[in-house]
Amino acid sequence: MYQRPSGIVTLTTDFGLRDPYVGIMKGALMAASDKPRLVDLSHDIDPQDIAMGAFVLWSAAARFVAGTVHVGVVDPGVGTARRLLAATAHGQYWLAPDNGLLGAVLATAASSEVRLLDLEHLRIQRSSQTFDGRDVLAPVAAWLAAGRYGFSAMGPPIADCDTRDPVFAGGSRLVHVDRYGNLITNLAGPLSAGQTVACGGQMVPVHNTYGDVASGEVLAYVGSFGLLEVAVANGNASERLGLQRGSPIELTKA
Amino acid sequence: MYQRPSGIVTLTTDFGLRDPYVGIMKGALMAASDKPRLVDLSHDIDPQDIAMGAFVLWSAAARFVAGTVHVGVVDPGVGTARRLLAATAHGQYWLAPDNGLLGAVLATAASSEVRLLDLEHLRIQRSSQTFDGRDVLAPVAAWLAAGRYGFSAMGPPIADCDTRDPVFAGGSRLVHVDRYGNLITNLAGPLSAGQTVACGGQMVPVHNTYGDVASGEVLAYVGSFGLLEVAVANGNASERLGLQRGSPIELTKA
Amino acid sequence: MYQRPSGIVTLTTDFGLRDPYVGIMKGALMAASDKPRLVDLSHDIDPQDIAMGAFVLWSAAARFVAGTVHVGVVDPGVGTARRLLAATAHGQYWLAPDNGLLGAVLATAASSEVRLLDLEHLRIQRSSQTFDGRDVLAPVAAWLAAGRYGFSAMGPPIADCDTRDPVFAGGSRLVHVDRYGNLITNLAGPLSAGQTVACGGQMVPVHNTYGDVASGEVLAYVGSFGLLEVAVANGNASERLGLQRGSPIELTKA
Repeated sequence: MYQRPSGIVTLTTDFGLRDPYVGIMKGALMAASDKPRLVDLSHDIDPQDIAMGAFVLWSAAARFVAGTVHVGVVDPGVGTARRLLAATAHGQYWLAPDNGLLGAVLATAASSEVRLLDLEHLRIQRSSQTFDGRDVLAPVAAWLAAGRYGFSAMGPPIADCDTRDPVFAGGSRLVHVDRYGNLITNLAGPLSAGQTVACGGQMVPVHNTYGDVASGEVLAYVGSFGLLEVAVANGNASERLGLQRGSPIELTKA
Repeated sequence: MYQRPSGIVTLTTDFGLRDPYVGIMKGALMAASDKPRLVDLSHDIDPQDIAMGAFVLWSAAARFVAGTVHVGVVDPGVGTARRLLAATAHGQYWLAPDNGLLGAVLATAASSEVRLLDLEHLRIQRSSQTFDGRDVLAPVAAWLAAGRYGFSAMGPPIADCDTRDPVFAGGSRLVHVDRYGNLITNLAGPLSAGQTVACGGQMVPVHNTYGDVASGEVLAYVGSFGLLEVAVANGNASERLGLQRGSPIELTKA
Repeated sequence: MYQRPSGIVTLTTDFGLRDPYVGIMKGALMAASDKPRLVDLSHDIDPQDIAMGAFVLWSAAARFVAGTVHVGVVDPGVGTARRLLAATAHGQYWLAPDNGLLGAVLATAASSEVRLLDLEHLRIQRSSQTFDGRDVLAPVAAWLAAGRYGFSAMGPPIADCDTRDPVFAGGSRLVHVDRYGNLITNLAGPLSAGQTVACGGQMVPVHNTYGDVASGEVLAYVGSFGLLEVAVANGNASERLGLQRGSPIELTKA
């Protein structure tokens, strides 16, 4: 009925890699099961930045095999009464706090189901009030990935989870700036040549890919996320155009 | 007699992730055995900072399964005659230079045993004078984790290793500041509400967790390491209080 | 005939660890095969810096078991007609764009063979024009490492690939500065005591290792890469001498 687990667990957190939190979370996960294979999606989500975490989690949905378990920990509400969720969407499993971190994943899913993690039923004993990634999500992810518990054992279905989508809702804009300075929008492809993107007071022509323009030119194209991006061929569009995440952009038909 | 190996090897170094040293060390480890599963604890220990490395290694002791092999490489003495150690403590194995890096692990262990790595007996041939993490500790960790050598084959027991504890000895103070700006002390819990922490000229009330105070308030609590921490709910205590590692703190009874 | 695959795949990219690109590439790799064991060599290659990537890839050649598959993605030409290569060298396999990234690996190999990746024959359908690491190199690496395709199935041999060696060609100079400020040259050992290195207007004596000089002194020695390095014992040579990558150095016989 539910997707069979793939044995893969991905981790997305705002822990950074300097503190031992990621390694400790993996220790807890491996203590719960030695089967899962772990993949780090990103641990450099800006601290407490739920929108960035939601974008990164969404970006994984199309790229991991069915039955993968994705764990998200951007959790400013840890230590309060906020809830923890388990979801199915895109043929995969998702574990995260109930704070919008799963918003983009759920909003883009053809179908989804969300359950409230029932710590009592799962026999989870927190050893701290401030590290649910280690004390709750790590063992639950391990059990789910190893097939020890099925999805329906996670807890009761809930209908009132936080469904805000911090990525695709709220108008066309830049939702991520990557290491190369490429500007990633929340507008999905396909595009056609001849269209133009209005972006920071500049009209940027749509092309197929970098090779269609000379080095140093600004172009728009559908990038590897399947989203409209604005880049400078062999350059940094964020610096050139002075744009950051949140800047509005507009796609105009030619 | 000794704990059976879990097959897990953790790595803690000051190598950073930009240079290829961590990957090369893993290559050497996997050349010695294809069995161990590797976990990065932190590679962003500040260069040559033994106290920070000792804290991170200690933090793993309670969170990995028995028989895990932990490797620490913060090694300003590499290329000199300093010794290399193998230890049992907390039901796990520890490999590191004899420079205090294992100080907190050993000081907090109910029982421990330390041996001097005998490179001749282990048939280790260094291929360099400056990278014992790769040439010595990686293969030894692999062999220990894979059960090829038992702990007693590591070398002779020694009684005069460096037992300085750079974390828990030397008075109550901040021993780590994490990515969120939380201030982690070397005072172990439990605490009781009503107690107060004197910290940077400020009296901070003890609470159970973040949810007990309003956003922006300073609080003290027992954090995920089992140690007293000082934080600002949804804020950065290090910036707010202007405190760094080493700052003295004091716990007062109400 | 060709080396049997070891099952290990290493990744070297300029993706950084903040964006999800590395994790997504691993997802694609694991979707193609669940067998390979993955090792990150470095993802902090400076953006588009082929010479740094070439150095890091070369540094792995001596340290991984025969049959390892190394994937390099520093690819300013992605989205143009630039070619993708598969090579054998040093008893291992190498996948990278045809842009010099494999230059040092090929130049130092006793023998090598280079093939042009034939995407049609390999039945690769790109899902984007701008992420060949995910769409091409990840699945090909997985198939090669898992033994699903042999090296000769990669595509036809080519003789005109980019053979520029950005590391060892072009005169003696600093080719890498590591996290400790150690200055790594492109001159291979052995050296003999009594020789001197001319470096930034300073004459630096050759020693065996750090322990041969007092703390704070400048020395030259053969480092862990098998290359001449200049360091300050317990200090930072790059800061002390004001030297960066590319600075010329000269080895003089005593």
